[in-house]
Amino acid sequence: MAQSDVPVSAAAAGSLAEEFAVPSHVEEVKKVMSEFAEQHEAAGRRVVLITSGGTKVPLESRTVRFLDNFSSGRRGASSAEYFLDSGYAVIFLHRHRSLYPYTRLYTGINLLDSLKFEPGDEDTSRVLLNKKELPNIVTVLKRYQAVKAAGLLLPVEFNTLSEYLHLLKAAAQALSSIGSKAMFYLAAAVSDFYIPASEMPEHKIQSSNGPLQISMKMVPKMLRPLVKDWAPKAFVISFKLETDPSILLERARRALDTYNHQVVVANILDTRRGYVVVVTKNSQQELSLTDEEVQKEIEIEDKIVRNLLAAHTHFMSQ
Amino acid sequence: MAQSDVPVSAAAAGSLAEEFAVPSHVEEVKKVMSEFAEQHEAAGRRVVLITSGGTKVPLESRTVRFLDNFSSGRRGASSAEYFLDSGYAVIFLHRHRSLYPYTRLYTGINLLDSLKFEPGDEDTSRVLLNKKELPNIVTVLKRYQAVKAAGLLLPVEFNTLSEYLHLLKAAAQALSSIGSKAMFYLAAAVSDFYIPASEMPEHKIQSSNGPLQISMKMVPKMLRPLVKDWAPKAFVISFKLETDPSILLERARRALDTYNHQVVVANILDTRRGYVVVVTKNSQQELSLTDEEVQKEIEIEDKIVRNLLAAHTHFMSQ
Repeated sequence: MAQSDVPVSAAAAGSLAEEFAVPSHVEEVKKVMSEFAEQHEAAGRRVVLITSGGTKVPLESRTVRFLDNFSSGRRGASSAEYFLDSGYAVIFLHRHRSLYPYTRLYTGINLLDSLKFEPGDEDTSRVLLNKKELPNIVTVLKRYQAVKAAGLLLPVEFNTLSEYLHLLKAAAQALSSIGSKAMFYLAAAVSDFYIPASEMPEHKIQSSNGPLQISMKMVPKMLRPLVKDWAPKAFVISFKLETDPSILLERARRALDTYNHQVVVANILDTRRGYVVVVTKNSQQELSLTDEEVQKEIEIEDKIVRNLLAAHTHFMSQ
Repeated sequence: MAQSDVPVSAAAAGSLAEEFAVPSHVEEVKKVMSEFAEQHEAAGRRVVLITSGGTKVPLESRTVRFLDNFSSGRRGASSAEYFLDSGYAVIFLHRHRSLYPYTRLYTGINLLDSLKFEPGDEDTSRVLLNKKELPNIVTVLKRYQAVKAAGLLLPVEFNTLSEYLHLLKAAAQALSSIGSKAMFYLAAAVSDFYIPASEMPEHKIQSSNGPLQISMKMVPKMLRPLVKDWAPKAFVISFKLETDPSILLERARRALDTYNHQVVVANILDTRRGYVVVVTKNSQQELSLTDEEVQKEIEIEDKIVRNLLAAHTHFMSQ
């Protein structure tokens, strides 16, 4: 289905609402994204839409069970910080409770373990943070507050596959007005499969009925209508994650041929934190971290973003 | 399978390790749980093992996709607090990153939004918490620190179904030495289905191969060997969550007949935060919250734990 032309485009562009329930707030969010993009474009900034985290696919309509994709949202959240450092305004379309820019650095830490109560009366008693428990907290807090005060980061949440698909479409339409100044950095781990609402059992599947057979349909590829119809002038990056290195580059090239976008960032599950290949129609460039860089806690996303920043500049000048 | 005797018991008790990979740290954790139980029993305390959160079931051996169960871990985390208030020592066997006692109250809050930097030099600069952003933080922090200082809460994490099954078995064996002073409060949402390692594809399932067919086996019920072999003197509570109210009580009674444990807490997905039925072999008791109690932010788990505390006292005296 990924290779055939008509059904994919039709399903994604036309009948998305037939197969996937429309979230009630999608028009409102679209308006907010539109205003965000126009305001920052007027101020001379580029705007990147980052998708991040995995999607949930319900197996029952009153959902107890669901299919999920591996993704903490680490890559999306850290990339957002580097894009902000590079002067971009960022729309962060992320899975509810996936990692978030800046706070991601303290995710494993139990907040209550790093607080200290300093007694006093109602007004003078205070709760202090033990700075040693939270590395670089002062620097990170200042940067977070500066980004927030400047209104450079617009967070939008999704949970299910349906919400993701509709919000991505809305974002693409919202950003089309700023043309080539828009970048799409599609790092979310989106399910390839789903169960159509019409084939879904209403109630929790009973285990006493015996072993479970699940039959799932393929999710329409959004990349084609995004590139072709919704935001045709934008600079678009997709990600390809595989576990088998031998098929990675071929899959990346095939995606570029199929969807006609600008860049695929290809990576392997086991090495994704230290190695990627940035693939375009006529180039491929390996990015990796040296041992020294790993020790200095330099992140691969720093290099990815720097590479794409240059490519985006070149793209805009064409 | 839930109704037939031999294969379930055999699979769960005997060949668990054949079907589900043994986590490397299970013996070490078992020893820690044993010592925890014996130490608190010697100090005159009862010990409750709470399971909390959903399990992950991998679909691929180098896992990108998995089947998950709906569960934030809210019920387990809040119940732990009420058991601690009631004098129990608590082993909290929970899904990695599910809600945690006390910190659960601040889960939706972005930490960095509630911090304020107070400048100074290296030693005098401080990071303060805005108390207004975190309701009751001072009370909660004091209670958390008291529980921690007294060593009353032992957290143990799981992620996959395999880890859960092996750690539950280890916990049951570790607690068997304190007999009827042990309670099992099995609130985790455990998958009923899994894919055996032998039938699992190694690599990420390719979407270009077309629609996905998944065939899953039933997970062995651990409740039977737990009650029969591992901790036969303990007071055991299981949970039954359904979406269809018409079958709920019948399922609860059937579970009691099948596994021969003491209590089923039965609940419906949509109303689970305000209504449960505590079912035993010869009683059933509805617990619910009045509008006034909801306004006062009283939680249903407060009532569940109080009910079970009395039942446990009665059970121990028999």
